[in-house]
Amino acid sequence: MIERAHVSDAVVRRMPGYYRHLRELETQGTQRISSQELSERMGLTASQIRQDFNCFGGFGQQGYGYNVSELKLRIGEILGLNHPYSVIIVGAGNIGRAVAHYGTFRREGFNIQAIFDISPTLIGIDVQGVVVQPMERLESWLTEHTVDIAVLAVPAEVSREVFASLVKGGVRAVWNFAPIDLVAPPEVTVNNVHLTDSLYTLTFRMRERQAGEN
Amino acid sequence: MIERAHVSDAVVRRMPGYYRHLRELETQGTQRISSQELSERMGLTASQIRQDFNCFGGFGQQGYGYNVSELKLRIGEILGLNHPYSVIIVGAGNIGRAVAHYGTFRREGFNIQAIFDISPTLIGIDVQGVVVQPMERLESWLTEHTVDIAVLAVPAEVSREVFASLVKGGVRAVWNFAPIDLVAPPEVTVNNVHLTDSLYTLTFRMRERQAGEN
Repeated sequence: MIERAHVSDAVVRRMPGYYRHLRELETQGTQRISSQELSERMGLTASQIRQDFNCFGGFGQQGYGYNVSELKLRIGEILGLNHPYSVIIVGAGNIGRAVAHYGTFRREGFNIQAIFDISPTLIGIDVQGVVVQPMERLESWLTEHTVDIAVLAVPAEVSREVFASLVKGGVRAVWNFAPIDLVAPPEVTVNNVHLTDSLYTLTFRMRERQAGEN
Repeated sequence: MIERAHVSDAVVRRMPGYYRHLRELETQGTQRISSQELSERMGLTASQIRQDFNCFGGFGQQGYGYNVSELKLRIGEILGLNHPYSVIIVGAGNIGRAVAHYGTFRREGFNIQAIFDISPTLIGIDVQGVVVQPMERLESWLTEHTVDIAVLAVPAEVSREVFASLVKGGVRAVWNFAPIDLVAPPEVTVNNVHLTDSLYTLTFRMRERQAGEN
């Protein structure tokens, strides 16, 4: 049994990066990789990588390095990617539609069951084979369906209200693109994608660099 | 003179969050806020907030708490948001178009100068008043224009090649949405938005929670 409670946030943050790099290596046809090579790709030390993997019982290196496909499979399991997820998208604006078209969704078993929006120009359109439904159907729809992940892509002003409906409707997790921090009850997992935060970090670093040059 | 070199990554990561919360408070008409109230909103301690602000010389609390608009302005300056940026978007697919429609861009002075794509169905279309140009014009366009930020929203397979053109063309910063880690020369600032990493962190936490319940 893996003692997941002891895995630090820093390790958790690096796991998706390992998966992403291993997927790229697999696509390129690479079969084996040493912790040294993987560390160079990822900008970490080889010892850091071995420490991270040890948090999950370690993934034995046999002969020369790790088997890329096997390591990707194991890390995918740790990330919970070894089974399908039922997904709904709330908000069919640009962000919602971009997520619907997102390649990872199709590839990794994130199945879009329904899409909701408030706008008459979006209701009824087909997005990746799913017809956009009116937002007022969301609550009743949730009483009849089990949803693993709701993608929240509505404007900030209504996001807390919609989030409350999602929680009430029993969704297990919310992937939030609205520019607010959602306070979740203990049974609901939330991850915020704050695009503005990423953009402002970029401008901060640009300004810092310019100050260093002057 | 602010000693920006001593500001830790952890502090830098929190600054955009302060700005986002202060903007929301300002929109709601809140004029003053104590470090205690701000800390509750942000899930930090009041002492943490005062420490963070001290990294930038501190923002004096006069009477009861901080003046929201003034604090937002000061943090905006630190984040480099007090002047306009010239932006291009490379890749007019769903992500590129979502970024083009992104409210923050209009509001905070990120001016989209040009959009490029390789697809004949996208070349020539109007996105937020900017006509999509063929990708082969990118390099010559860059010789004639100064670009602060390039939004990189092309498929992973071509992202390194396009990134090289951007660096050669003298862009100061790249906001990367391609699912790869770009290695930047010292003169170019890069920030990666890895949507897959955020999604996998969500599924990891869901799995961890489920394991805890069983």
